[in-house]
Amino acid sequence: MLRTHTCGELRISDINSTVKLSGWVQRSRDLGGMTFIDLRDRYGITQLVFNMETHPKQGEQARKLGREYVIQITGKVAERSNKNAKIATGDIEIIVDDLTILNKAKLPPFTIEDDTDGGEELRMKYRYLDLRRNPLRKAMELRHKMAITTRNYLDKQGFFEIETPYLIKSTPEGARDFIVPSRMNANQFYALPQSPQTFKQLLMVAGYDRYYQIVKCFRDEDLRADRQPEFTQIDCEMAFVEQEDILNTFEGLTSYLFKEVKGLDISNFPRMDYADAMKFYGSDKPDMRFDMRFVELNDLAQNKGFVVFDQAELVIGINASGMAEYTRKQLDQLTDFVKKPQIGAAGLVYVKYNTDGTLKSSVDKFYSSEELQKWAERFAAKPGDLMLILSGGTDKVRKQLNELRLEMGNRMGLRNPNTFAPLWVVDFPLLEWDEESGRYHAMHHPFTSPKKEDIELLSTDPGKVRANAYDLVINGVEIGGGSIRIHDRDLQKLMFKHLGFTDEEAQAQFGFLMDAFEFGAPPHGGVAFGFDRITSLFGGSDSIRDYIAFPKNNSGRDIMIDSPSPIAQEQLDELRLNLVKAKK
Amino acid sequence: MLRTHTCGELRISDINSTVKLSGWVQRSRDLGGMTFIDLRDRYGITQLVFNMETHPKQGEQARKLGREYVIQITGKVAERSNKNAKIATGDIEIIVDDLTILNKAKLPPFTIEDDTDGGEELRMKYRYLDLRRNPLRKAMELRHKMAITTRNYLDKQGFFEIETPYLIKSTPEGARDFIVPSRMNANQFYALPQSPQTFKQLLMVAGYDRYYQIVKCFRDEDLRADRQPEFTQIDCEMAFVEQEDILNTFEGLTSYLFKEVKGLDISNFPRMDYADAMKFYGSDKPDMRFDMRFVELNDLAQNKGFVVFDQAELVIGINASGMAEYTRKQLDQLTDFVKKPQIGAAGLVYVKYNTDGTLKSSVDKFYSSEELQKWAERFAAKPGDLMLILSGGTDKVRKQLNELRLEMGNRMGLRNPNTFAPLWVVDFPLLEWDEESGRYHAMHHPFTSPKKEDIELLSTDPGKVRANAYDLVINGVEIGGGSIRIHDRDLQKLMFKHLGFTDEEAQAQFGFLMDAFEFGAPPHGGVAFGFDRITSLFGGSDSIRDYIAFPKNNSGRDIMIDSPSPIAQEQLDELRLNLVKAKK
Repeated sequence: MLRTHTCGELRISDINSTVKLSGWVQRSRDLGGMTFIDLRDRYGITQLVFNMETHPKQGEQARKLGREYVIQITGKVAERSNKNAKIATGDIEIIVDDLTILNKAKLPPFTIEDDTDGGEELRMKYRYLDLRRNPLRKAMELRHKMAITTRNYLDKQGFFEIETPYLIKSTPEGARDFIVPSRMNANQFYALPQSPQTFKQLLMVAGYDRYYQIVKCFRDEDLRADRQPEFTQIDCEMAFVEQEDILNTFEGLTSYLFKEVKGLDISNFPRMDYADAMKFYGSDKPDMRFDMRFVELNDLAQNKGFVVFDQAELVIGINASGMAEYTRKQLDQLTDFVKKPQIGAAGLVYVKYNTDGTLKSSVDKFYSSEELQKWAERFAAKPGDLMLILSGGTDKVRKQLNELRLEMGNRMGLRNPNTFAPLWVVDFPLLEWDEESGRYHAMHHPFTSPKKEDIELLSTDPGKVRANAYDLVINGVEIGGGSIRIHDRDLQKLMFKHLGFTDEEAQAQFGFLMDAFEFGAPPHGGVAFGFDRITSLFGGSDSIRDYIAFPKNNSGRDIMIDSPSPIAQEQLDELRLNLVKAKK
Repeated sequence: MLRTHTCGELRISDINSTVKLSGWVQRSRDLGGMTFIDLRDRYGITQLVFNMETHPKQGEQARKLGREYVIQITGKVAERSNKNAKIATGDIEIIVDDLTILNKAKLPPFTIEDDTDGGEELRMKYRYLDLRRNPLRKAMELRHKMAITTRNYLDKQGFFEIETPYLIKSTPEGARDFIVPSRMNANQFYALPQSPQTFKQLLMVAGYDRYYQIVKCFRDEDLRADRQPEFTQIDCEMAFVEQEDILNTFEGLTSYLFKEVKGLDISNFPRMDYADAMKFYGSDKPDMRFDMRFVELNDLAQNKGFVVFDQAELVIGINASGMAEYTRKQLDQLTDFVKKPQIGAAGLVYVKYNTDGTLKSSVDKFYSSEELQKWAERFAAKPGDLMLILSGGTDKVRKQLNELRLEMGNRMGLRNPNTFAPLWVVDFPLLEWDEESGRYHAMHHPFTSPKKEDIELLSTDPGKVRANAYDLVINGVEIGGGSIRIHDRDLQKLMFKHLGFTDEEAQAQFGFLMDAFEFGAPPHGGVAFGFDRITSLFGGSDSIRDYIAFPKNNSGRDIMIDSPSPIAQEQLDELRLNLVKAKK
């Protein structure tokens, strides 16, 4: 070993030991007779002291060390006169006897500090330097801890980790596949998995009972800031279970992670119907760190002469508790906020419940104090509260009010990243109507089972059919979801039919699964959690990119290795492919 | 839950409990008044009893159950009159009160028994049925246990599991890449990783100190029986270490696996130079479960008139202890064995050291008893031994004798799959000459460091340069290998030059790594173990395919899902690709 200890290890009890350390030069201070160097590795920082009087050669060397040089030193542990309580090794320093430069370093293009001066693009190009910074190191350590803790929990629960293949088959249903040309099978292609869905179901058919994997998945989609072409999920499946069994198992996992990784006791995982989530929060992933439920006002607010409300399908609002003192300017900001094109409301109505008990609104012209008093009662508002009201088409206005609710949550400090409020959203619709293709799509995926009591609706009112599907939402972030699957060939066939597959298409793409259902498939279901997502949530961040060692940018490029890139014509020839030159 | 217990759980202490079980019908025996059913799940088998007198309806149902039907039963645990000591639940049976058929099953195309009647192809097509059989279930369970045990060991040793990307960059060095067309970056391609090599080195540059991953790797090679286009490795890297530190860490891992997974104490991991391995065993992966070292005879056997030996570069043999009583027929079999085209020896010379002390050889014409006696001394042979001698060109004859040694090991019962003999082979050559391309190739990979004392030979005698490279071999199987890497830009550049890269090519393909070496790269090295391989070794098998849940066949096809397969023209259009129709 090129060291006897790490840079985070030595304590006051080690005084007078001779030690060997290796690491990076974080910082150096040349005080003439003495040079101090902060030596850094993954484990911490240790102060080195070079004494020009006793060790002039080493002192001279030390003066010339640049930032990020890799060095090895031998020396004696001494007590520090001015201790540094901020670091674990702050009680000691090393009086250096010997110094070896293991590798030089050019000046990094940005500072290796918690707050760096490097821009996004530069830090992506030199990702290996960015990864040296504390915030990223902590993110990677957190990710490691999340993974091993997840595995140990699932192992103890009897789950087998079973690897499913990466070279599978392209299926046009769902998102776009990445494809992989086969050289040995000319003009044929593998696809990279969007998820191990069919394989994990086959493992249930094979009797494996409880399966899990922390596994890479791939989607060739146009990227948004929080999407990556390759992402990781905690993927699980269980047999002989009902929905509640799965919810219990995975809230067990989530609680365990909170406890082991963050030392938090979080055991309350309420359930909410999808229909209620939409009605009361305007979102299928409501942030439950605060309530601020939607209140509907149609009966109270319509037919009083205010034409905007009269023409609206829904008049709906929230009560911002204690915000009655909002100024005109603040109210204008809120109005501007809801009128942003991304949100698209026409305007915002407010009612202030003043501390003196009077009510003041932007629609005083149309409503009497008594009428507004009834609104306040509906909102359960108290003096000092501020009611904010939108109106419009039901679906649209709910979405708009959801944005306003979250904005108010931010403004009111109700969304602390260190508070965690989980929620299971259940009873999702099975199908959703797609305007573009003019047909129903599976909201979850084609393998999700409909609720038994709703199966009859499939032929009469497919949009009304509820699925045995559920999502885990924490702090308004969708951590993952799952469903009880179909395990019967006929029902699966019926589902494909409703999704617009011909029998031939269904058989060609998913015949292996439907065949498998005929050989003794047990009832089963599962869940997939976004591992990048849950890790960043635990880290208190909403950027998954900081929790991925080597992420891609929004064009799907790895800037560091400069990929994707052109390949040699011989490679294309072997694969029997020709490029169609891009024009546009 | 659709059960209160699994089929492997109930014991005599559970008698009189009412239980609910779910599982598959393994076997049923209809004895008229009673029907017995073996109910199977992942955890075991439980006997069910249907009594026609007390439960005629259930009894009638039970009679009609076919193999592999999925059922759920409720019943009472009772003591069995004729106990079955072979299974853990053999003391009890369930007197069934109620039966629900959860799913029917068509007759499986082969029997779900330890010894099945299904052929390879059929079992691949219905892999989910083959996976129900005990041997495969045990293989998957073993694999799971190997994985979690590996992770826990490495976690305790301070290794971080860090995921490296799957969509990387194609580099022509090494094996052939699978490539992935990018839609967002027209006419450009990702490649799937043959290993995370460069990324794990960058993680060392980033200061992560100890990295590991159990990770899929991809090679588009023509397949042999024991190769898969996608395979899994335990991939590790450490900084601030020397070769011995890495060997110690990973023999620690291997010992721990033997102990935790198989209950074996295996702590002896001798080291052997590559040169010695070739000289004494004719292989860089000698099976050390038995010795039978090569003995060289040139000085004793040449110039005595036997022209075959006289013309040979090397006369070399092994001593098969106690095999002097081999018959003419058995010796002929051995001769046929070494003359097989795959081995290619011209013939085999034997010397029997008879129990009466006399020596009898196939070359008595040329050698006196005294001369053969000297051979025997060289072999350290005792009366009763059989010496087997080959001759020819050095490299060839060593390889041939290696085959003969292994064959004798098999015949003599010295290769028990439940005995494990690890060995580190060290000091591999850095380069090997490739006849086809007329240049040197990296024996390991271009990032392996040469031994310091051999660097000068790079320009004068490159084939002689030894590398800081090592392989772990167990029972003659290469479990994995690794090296101390280059961490210096100039040396890395020199290596690329010796491997025939122009500076421009080296920079275009590996510039990011060489750049990284300039920003403070620590000395580092690592190892990669073949996870499929070590698991099958622990399972006592030499077929990795049985230890992979969904393997591909020798043409790289997944027969079950019928992949690879053609894709839609729209997909090709989006990727700006055209097919070149295959002619040949």
